[in-house]
Amino acid sequence: MKYVISSLLAALLLSCSAGAFAQQAGAKPEQLIKWRQSVYQVLGWNSGRIKANVDGQFNKEEVVRSANTIAALANSGIGALFAPGTETGKGWKETATKPEFFKNQQKVGELAGNFNREANELAKVAASGDSAAIKAQFGKLSQTCKACHDDFKVKD
Amino acid sequence: MKYVISSLLAALLLSCSAGAFAQQAGAKPEQLIKWRQSVYQVLGWNSGRIKANVDGQFNKEEVVRSANTIAALANSGIGALFAPGTETGKGWKETATKPEFFKNQQKVGELAGNFNREANELAKVAASGDSAAIKAQFGKLSQTCKACHDDFKVKD
Repeated sequence: MKYVISSLLAALLLSCSAGAFAQQAGAKPEQLIKWRQSVYQVLGWNSGRIKANVDGQFNKEEVVRSANTIAALANSGIGALFAPGTETGKGWKETATKPEFFKNQQKVGELAGNFNREANELAKVAASGDSAAIKAQFGKLSQTCKACHDDFKVKD
Repeated sequence: MKYVISSLLAALLLSCSAGAFAQQAGAKPEQLIKWRQSVYQVLGWNSGRIKANVDGQFNKEEVVRSANTIAALANSGIGALFAPGTETGKGWKETATKPEFFKNQQKVGELAGNFNREANELAKVAASGDSAAIKAQFGKLSQTCKACHDDFKVKD
């Protein structure tokens, strides 16, 4: 049995990039789910800050650091936190990712690409300090969040 | 009573920077604690990835995105998540921040400044791709985490 598992692990190693594997080294599914739930909380915190700024009293510095955090997370390789074995389970709480998420790699990849693109664009626009442009770009980013939640997130 | 609260709120607005206030707009202490607990999880995820890379098979791309995420979080204004009212309470779980944290602003500011400096330096060093230099700088960053945990974090 140990040999079978070792062989499977070896096969998995060969089929993954070294980077993708290192991300999960030693991490249990529960930890991966906890990390991804944490990432979405941090995204929510920073989205909320940008919304508060574009809807109210505008503070460029806060918008820039919020947008930079969202972009860094978008670029961080969140996909690795949805590794096989994390389809169900509890991190901080039961996962809110629908089973369909894990069966639609192409669609998920497309939605993730849209999020990534708009998040990086927002960081650029934020640096300009143009509040109207930031508001417009934040709207585009929010649409990419919603698109994925609509299809693949269990409603709260 | 409403007038008193409005006056207090107005005074508070005047005494805070607009940015600092917008960060907390409408957020309850429990939410702030949940956000900060999430931030530390994300820091842990990314620190773990860097450690796995400098101790094992080195993948520059993964180190860069991990270091950039840590730097973005260091720059994001985490201090706002320790606002008055969050000394005790439950986010995802009971806060692990010791009461002393809230009574030692100068020391906390100094430790936070060290963390911020080393995190931003790590992002720079990561971009160079020099694994030995990254390992050394990651060590410096880790010391700043430990220094704060030693004084102000309840042991798990």
